[in-house]
Amino acid sequence: MTKTETSHLVADVFNTDFNHNLNYSTLGREILNTAEQHAEKRDFGLTQIRKSNQSWVLSRLTIEMNRMPHVFETYSIDTWIENIYRMFTNRNFCIKVSNSTDDSDPEVVGYARSVWALIDNDSRQPLDLTSLYGETFEKWLYPENPCPIDGHSRIRPLSSYSSEVKYAIRYNDIDCNGHVNSVKYLEHICNLFNLEFYKKHRLKRIELAYVAESYFGDTLHFFMTEIEPLRYQIEIAKSSTADETPTTVVRSFVTFA
Amino acid sequence: MTKTETSHLVADVFNTDFNHNLNYSTLGREILNTAEQHAEKRDFGLTQIRKSNQSWVLSRLTIEMNRMPHVFETYSIDTWIENIYRMFTNRNFCIKVSNSTDDSDPEVVGYARSVWALIDNDSRQPLDLTSLYGETFEKWLYPENPCPIDGHSRIRPLSSYSSEVKYAIRYNDIDCNGHVNSVKYLEHICNLFNLEFYKKHRLKRIELAYVAESYFGDTLHFFMTEIEPLRYQIEIAKSSTADETPTTVVRSFVTFA
Repeated sequence: MTKTETSHLVADVFNTDFNHNLNYSTLGREILNTAEQHAEKRDFGLTQIRKSNQSWVLSRLTIEMNRMPHVFETYSIDTWIENIYRMFTNRNFCIKVSNSTDDSDPEVVGYARSVWALIDNDSRQPLDLTSLYGETFEKWLYPENPCPIDGHSRIRPLSSYSSEVKYAIRYNDIDCNGHVNSVKYLEHICNLFNLEFYKKHRLKRIELAYVAESYFGDTLHFFMTEIEPLRYQIEIAKSSTADETPTTVVRSFVTFA
Repeated sequence: MTKTETSHLVADVFNTDFNHNLNYSTLGREILNTAEQHAEKRDFGLTQIRKSNQSWVLSRLTIEMNRMPHVFETYSIDTWIENIYRMFTNRNFCIKVSNSTDDSDPEVVGYARSVWALIDNDSRQPLDLTSLYGETFEKWLYPENPCPIDGHSRIRPLSSYSSEVKYAIRYNDIDCNGHVNSVKYLEHICNLFNLEFYKKHRLKRIELAYVAESYFGDTLHFFMTEIEPLRYQIEIAKSSTADETPTTVVRSFVTFA
């Protein structure tokens, strides 16, 4: 088995946006699915870690695309582990579009970076990855494989904002872990911009820092400000009653080109 | 080439709901993608009909499931054309879960029925399918293949309703045709019910009758009434201003078990 796992996909008609480009929520979902498949085949996927009452928790996700796969294009997602540390592990991704039927000369269209922690399901506390999975991971580490996009930015709490959008969490937002699906935050962030904006600008890079979980019954608040031209900081906070002060769930930067 | 086309899929972690079952929006999207793949390989898919300035328009979609694929289960979707008429064609689907690695004894978990019309992109008027595609379709017709679920119900306009939910159409609702994705209506209908309800009841059958298209900038109104125990009629209407009387876009029945 190789250090990288690859998903082979097609930008289906019903996963593309009005510009005939694959949408970010589908790409994000397939990125996480590829990560899970990599882990599953190497004995640290959900099936295995559930037996130890553990879960993987996504802490950071950054996706940067030079272009999105167009409708009907076949594309692939490679994933590999960059490194393992005591409290987290880095996993990277490379997204390629196939330009020929034998896939001999694929075009790299983007990369992604992610950071994961392993938690105990009862205490919800992070576990020591090196001692638990250090040996298991050793043969899969692939730090020399290039991931040429910038690392995750430090995202400070938002001090002021120019707009607030509220959204009541719905059934489809909740995934099999019982909380809001990591990719749904990405989808809701994409939805903060209107069609006219997307006709002029392309979403080039999105960075998500997952701070806390949110649940059915919560209302999400999307506080947004343009920190420099075409670069936005978005802080998602949750509240469970109308009176409650919202607390931060996700911090994000999005950059358009 | 056979009369049926089959997609092979996996109920990925990030496409399943809090009950660890594949969600209806993913299933709906894969049903439509399978339809498109069937058509594409047989020379009446989007790539081909676009050259004649034509589009397929989904008129009816009914999905009935005995159970949903669970997380990590592999499943398949078969599709075939039941018949062709002057103004529309019927396409059916069978959804199976693989219970063995060689897929020798799959379990049929549900079926779907759909009705499609072909329109001219400029006039937006339906075209005569028999004269345009009668010969092309002839060898693919498979009316003898069983689709044992009930046909599409007649859905009359809703005369009264017990609840109304409003939703402003967002970027991710719009597909590559520039209007709200057929599957997004299904997703929004699923979202009308809360998590407590889904803990007690399983969505068994959903029927959608597509009446008109809606666009970015429109607000959707979901008018709902329980017509008999666990059977709901939902009418989706759109308005482009706050004063405008909403006009019907989709009529639907959903039945829980």
